[in-house]
Amino acid sequence: MSKGFDELISKVGAKKKVSVAVAQDAPVLEAVKAAREKGIADAILVGDADKIREIAAEIHMDLSDYEVIDVKDVQEAAHTAVGLVHSGKADMYMKGLIDTKSFLKSVLDKEVGLRTGKPLSHVAVFELKGIDHLLFLSDVAFIPYPTLEDKIAIIEHTVQVARACGIACPKVAPLAAVEVVNPKMQATVDAAELTRLNQEGEIKNCIVDGPLSLDLAIDAEAAKHKAAEDRKIVGDADVLLFPDIHAGNLVYKALVHLTECKNGCLLTGTKAPVILTSRSDTFETKVNSIALAAIVAEELQKKSED
Amino acid sequence: MSKGFDELISKVGAKKKVSVAVAQDAPVLEAVKAAREKGIADAILVGDADKIREIAAEIHMDLSDYEVIDVKDVQEAAHTAVGLVHSGKADMYMKGLIDTKSFLKSVLDKEVGLRTGKPLSHVAVFELKGIDHLLFLSDVAFIPYPTLEDKIAIIEHTVQVARACGIACPKVAPLAAVEVVNPKMQATVDAAELTRLNQEGEIKNCIVDGPLSLDLAIDAEAAKHKAAEDRKIVGDADVLLFPDIHAGNLVYKALVHLTECKNGCLLTGTKAPVILTSRSDTFETKVNSIALAAIVAEELQKKSED
Repeated sequence: MSKGFDELISKVGAKKKVSVAVAQDAPVLEAVKAAREKGIADAILVGDADKIREIAAEIHMDLSDYEVIDVKDVQEAAHTAVGLVHSGKADMYMKGLIDTKSFLKSVLDKEVGLRTGKPLSHVAVFELKGIDHLLFLSDVAFIPYPTLEDKIAIIEHTVQVARACGIACPKVAPLAAVEVVNPKMQATVDAAELTRLNQEGEIKNCIVDGPLSLDLAIDAEAAKHKAAEDRKIVGDADVLLFPDIHAGNLVYKALVHLTECKNGCLLTGTKAPVILTSRSDTFETKVNSIALAAIVAEELQKKSED
Repeated sequence: MSKGFDELISKVGAKKKVSVAVAQDAPVLEAVKAAREKGIADAILVGDADKIREIAAEIHMDLSDYEVIDVKDVQEAAHTAVGLVHSGKADMYMKGLIDTKSFLKSVLDKEVGLRTGKPLSHVAVFELKGIDHLLFLSDVAFIPYPTLEDKIAIIEHTVQVARACGIACPKVAPLAAVEVVNPKMQATVDAAELTRLNQEGEIKNCIVDGPLSLDLAIDAEAAKHKAAEDRKIVGDADVLLFPDIHAGNLVYKALVHLTECKNGCLLTGTKAPVILTSRSDTFETKVNSIALAAIVAEELQKKSED
């Protein structure tokens, strides 16, 4: 079980390879360079080679360490970059200077993309002061109003990421404003149903216990105070499942902007990990996201070898 | 404009009077005692006088400083206590050892209660590290899925509290996961409508600008980064309006449990401020809530004198 990102980075085994779509983006290249220096991943840079060289010179990045594939057209560059992951030449796929919609189009490409038939979802991973393990939040950025079926997929994807990070049987808290089922609140009805499906073995490799309020999910003192003795999660949740994107995104941004934390994120539900950092992410967050992707790629490869 | 609760407490003018329903509750009496010592409010204690005396002895509270009204029956005690506020003998109403449902029944009593015809809503006030003014969050505890009409009432109530705290024209951010209108996300449609109603003068005494993501609402750097130049709120929101109770409550609990903060809360939409602290609130939060109520009571009384 990794307590934080430093430990997580140290656990990356053999260096992975990240394929970057439209790589002519200074912050992305800086993160890619750092990931290589930290032994996390090498990179294949697909995009406008002239511009990539220009930026590399500016940030003192030695391009002889990287494979550069010159594709000027943005959509074509993404197509090439995702194809490298599809064919196994790279282990993970990263967004560069391309809008999210076009990038996702490449992820979902029927021929060379990374679709699995599952809905794509997003996981944000946090190292927070006062919490002695990583927290996995989903979905804070991708699925607006997840159905029960979406929530099952989100749990499966997020549990896979948490397990790759060393948590053998993650505790999953489907969150709501309250900790009892209220038929007028779909979030609580879904939470109870997810708990039942987990008990019956339909949702595997984790313990689901909901609905839970956030204090019962992450604060052992609060959980004891409310005498929640029959619960399987008593302030020790690993995975926080949000009722919808508003709740998830607002909590995500409260953590990023109002707490001392480190974080990273991934797109999941794909054949290989996808790194979709945003312009407002810090350098550290981008590097953490590449590390997360490397850890998950390693796990996926172990599985396919089994 | 008060930067924090210490300053807020120092601004309470003439001591107010709080009427406590079913006062035989140690944590409530400790907060009431502290509020008196800080010059915030005297109290009338309505409830089981024997039990009140017993607790008072334990916490070294001199009952000669307080009016005690002996009413053993819980619902009757609440009826008596709220009646004291209704008739003007007390300025604000506080929950003691009575379940929330029965307490609210007394608040809404047609003869002696405090209803105004507006829906009740809840405001949580935060002093947060890194933010140089108080933040007013609503609704994080009371209205599950506010309609547009409810949201108008919530803004009016919360703006009234913010103004009482010295913010002449509060900036109100109707929050969502995104900052652009998406017809498939009701929160963003409502946010745009609330902004329009404010521009047309239907929602007064404040500036409404939504939809806003949380970073644009509270982080000036992030707001500048996203080049949101046409916005009226650029990281300087005073009031955070949540799309629903899940989003509100989860952010509220993230702040309480994961940040360095002080907070207090009030029930609003009533003729006089109502203090509805929860068992899990700290002593300090309870005292802050009484201070908030006193500040709002002062403002309401000024208005009725005008």
